[in-house]
Amino acid sequence: MYTCCMYSFETKIRVRYGETDQMSFVYYGVYAQYYEVGRVELLRSLGVTYKELEEMGFALPVVNLNINYKKPAYYDDELTIRTTIKELPSAKITFYYEMFNANNELLNIGEVVLVFVNKKTGKPCFAPEMAINKFKEKLA
Amino acid sequence: MYTCCMYSFETKIRVRYGETDQMSFVYYGVYAQYYEVGRVELLRSLGVTYKELEEMGFALPVVNLNINYKKPAYYDDELTIRTTIKELPSAKITFYYEMFNANNELLNIGEVVLVFVNKKTGKPCFAPEMAINKFKEKLA
Amino acid sequence: MYTCCMYSFETKIRVRYGETDQMSFVYYGVYAQYYEVGRVELLRSLGVTYKELEEMGFALPVVNLNINYKKPAYYDDELTIRTTIKELPSAKITFYYEMFNANNELLNIGEVVLVFVNKKTGKPCFAPEMAINKFKEKLA
Amino acid sequence: MYTCCMYSFETKIRVRYGETDQMSFVYYGVYAQYYEVGRVELLRSLGVTYKELEEMGFALPVVNLNINYKKPAYYDDELTIRTTIKELPSAKITFYYEMFNANNELLNIGEVVLVFVNKKTGKPCFAPEMAINKFKEKLA
Repeated sequence: MYTCCMYSFETKIRVRYGETDQMSFVYYGVYAQYYEVGRVELLRSLGVTYKELEEMGFALPVVNLNINYKKPAYYDDELTIRTTIKELPSAKITFYYEMFNANNELLNIGEVVLVFVNKKTGKPCFAPEMAINKFKEKLA
Repeated sequence: MYTCCMYSFETKIRVRYGETDQMSFVYYGVYAQYYEVGRVELLRSLGVTYKELEEMGFALPVVNLNINYKKPAYYDDELTIRTTIKELPSAKITFYYEMFNANNELLNIGEVVLVFVNKKTGKPCFAPEMAINKFKEKLA
Repeated sequence: MYTCCMYSFETKIRVRYGETDQMSFVYYGVYAQYYEVGRVELLRSLGVTYKELEEMGFALPVVNLNINYKKPAYYDDELTIRTTIKELPSAKITFYYEMFNANNELLNIGEVVLVFVNKKTGKPCFAPEMAINKFKEKLA
Repeated sequence: MYTCCMYSFETKIRVRYGETDQMSFVYYGVYAQYYEVGRVELLRSLGVTYKELEEMGFALPVVNLNINYKKPAYYDDELTIRTTIKELPSAKITFYYEMFNANNELLNIGEVVLVFVNKKTGKPCFAPEMAINKFKEKLA
């Protein structure tokens, strides 16, 4: 699903028991993991794997995380993570998130910004040509 | 440490092996747990325990999480979480965070907003008088 | 797949970034979560959901966990969890595990024993008739 | 605290909210993290840090984990992990565990076996002289 200059990818995830807390909600910190799964699968859908990026010598640390929690998720829920990109990666890359439960209720929205780092020098760098091209195919 | 209308509390935390990832950094989602430790200990320093709040019939789900990551933390680092409150709790309560490593380098800053919910009705509600009074003593 | 008096069910799981540690291995404690996914999906394949058991008033705390680690799993690996039951649930239930990577290498074997507890009384109890019958269909 | 041929070290740990599950118990997989804290602090008490061992070129993957759960731990509990060694490290090292809550109730007992691996070759190897000597001082 995409419109001009926007590409979204949906991944499903099943809530594990250990991800709930004693409020019976999914613990608020667990969504960082879910969001990670969302972006990894979006990249895979473009033909880029995060693993490959690391093997090419890049690391992608997160520099910003923002989550707006609207409704809780519960044990055994099957959640849908919709991950969206809106611009080409440059020195950084931003992923937008919406999560839904099986009743299609919006649970939370969020945003994660990552930067490209050269693993050898530890310095910030630009996204590799290869990744930019994959993005171009979808965002053009 | 506090100035007029602001109260900060510092907690130390040691990075566990399982909290690192293959980049050798503390995984970005782990900070949500560290932040939780920070606010729980700030509350305890005021004479309020989160456990007690739950026993009084309140739940405090997080409605917003924001983290700006500046530098990574590493395995076995002893980190300092400085948690700050700037206003009395009402229907919600906001905690501000700064984390430092042992070299006093600022690792990240963040903000967490929680709301008070009546556990029986599941409805939003006001912070209990007791908690507000404890805050007043520090923020007055 | 089952033989007389034994029923196995296989589930696939993709290793998440946050589940690795700085050795680049999946952290040894994470397998407890994977094992939980294995047994939950085995139960689901029998027409029993763990969630339903809890709603019927049962809790199933783990009383024993044993894992023998043979080879590490890595980031982004697609793992297969083969979960096996060999006897009917009584006051307790035992799950046997074997995990494999995509090259079909055996990564670890393990065993988890859970007991049935009546959530109201907090006392140990017997597995519900319903669950025993579902197991009978497979293990007979 | 030690007797001939046995050395124990106690560490305290406070249960975090995200470590509980919807049964209100500490999730069974979390104890692997607590046990890790226990052995890291035992080593530190001997003047050996796990970090240092890694910097010397060793990795210590876990090859066996066994936990017997007797009683649950709850949110905000202050737990005591008593970690014990009974023999000198060789190609492997075994840690024995007992965990207690603030009422001194025994919550679980366990055992973790780790092996020494040469990080460069990936091959099993012997514990470094330095570590063996530190153990000797306590176990002699």
